[in-house]
Amino acid sequence: MAKTESKQLTRDKLLDEGVALIMAQGYHGTGLQDILHSVGVPKGSFYNYFASKEDFGAETIRHYIEPFILQLDCHLRRPELGGAEALQAYFWELIEESARRQFKGGCLLGNLMGEIGDTSDACRESLRQAVHRYRDKLREGIARAQDEGAYRRDRTAEELADFLVDAWQGALLRMKVEQSIRPLEECFRNLLEGYFRA
Amino acid sequence: MAKTESKQLTRDKLLDEGVALIMAQGYHGTGLQDILHSVGVPKGSFYNYFASKEDFGAETIRHYIEPFILQLDCHLRRPELGGAEALQAYFWELIEESARRQFKGGCLLGNLMGEIGDTSDACRESLRQAVHRYRDKLREGIARAQDEGAYRRDRTAEELADFLVDAWQGALLRMKVEQSIRPLEECFRNLLEGYFRA
Repeated sequence: MAKTESKQLTRDKLLDEGVALIMAQGYHGTGLQDILHSVGVPKGSFYNYFASKEDFGAETIRHYIEPFILQLDCHLRRPELGGAEALQAYFWELIEESARRQFKGGCLLGNLMGEIGDTSDACRESLRQAVHRYRDKLREGIARAQDEGAYRRDRTAEELADFLVDAWQGALLRMKVEQSIRPLEECFRNLLEGYFRA
Repeated sequence: MAKTESKQLTRDKLLDEGVALIMAQGYHGTGLQDILHSVGVPKGSFYNYFASKEDFGAETIRHYIEPFILQLDCHLRRPELGGAEALQAYFWELIEESARRQFKGGCLLGNLMGEIGDTSDACRESLRQAVHRYRDKLREGIARAQDEGAYRRDRTAEELADFLVDAWQGALLRMKVEQSIRPLEECFRNLLEGYFRA
């Protein structure tokens, strides 16, 4: 295997482990040592991969959001579904996954917006970009639902997408302390089946 | 001053300092040392006040939410305002305070639900109780707005209050990464001026 390819694999492993550990212990509660140890990377070589813990945090955020955007995109590409149905299918999948995971973790973006959203500039910028990328993909589905006459048109697709992102983040926080998917189901019901409807 | 009174004062100071430090640095990022040092309490005497860091966290959460409930209650008692107007006055005050604080901190409950909501049992229970106490006070205003014909009645006051709590928490997270009160204004507009209206 070429050296750069192997380096990329190790880097991805470090990011995967970063997601898992920061999700469980928070950003401040996660030491670089823990991450390196779990991937079997020698202590001194961390800086071959990342410039600093903050840089690692910012990259972990980018790494985390991609699968969610892909998953949402898959639903939006299902030819048999309208925009509103695709969004419902996607969020229903998220609710089922949260139940399977026993309400653990929530969303790394929400957890980090709370913990370091206004203290680390690099992580804030990475969080902002990740939320915008996710919001933009939701906007696609919402705009289609508006065009198809399923969603209200007195607010722009971007305004509705922003509100959906925020309300969903709040519901994920609440899920963790209630140990229940009810807050997610309520968000789904109030917005996707309620406020957003034409 | 009586000894128990002085002990209570020191305990309150430790909790005030706990709110400020945990807000700025997160739960894991805040050492007991920092808190004791800032209040001038000798290292060994922390356990005269709290059983553990976790117990301190749980008490800090209780200590934090009280002024918000009082502030909301003040608006609900204003005889010239209906339920919907009282809620609008209260949330408008929160938005103005957030702008004055330059979007710093957000809400301690939201930050801690994200960081330790599913890892510390004692803190989760304290967060759950604090959120419920706050939700119950909001429910009072919402029920009044429903009785007065201002708010929709096809959802219970408790369901609407739960959704408002969650959506507002999400908006506060977003405020921090956007460095803007716009997410709060949008939550206000979408719920208090939108979805909740009869």
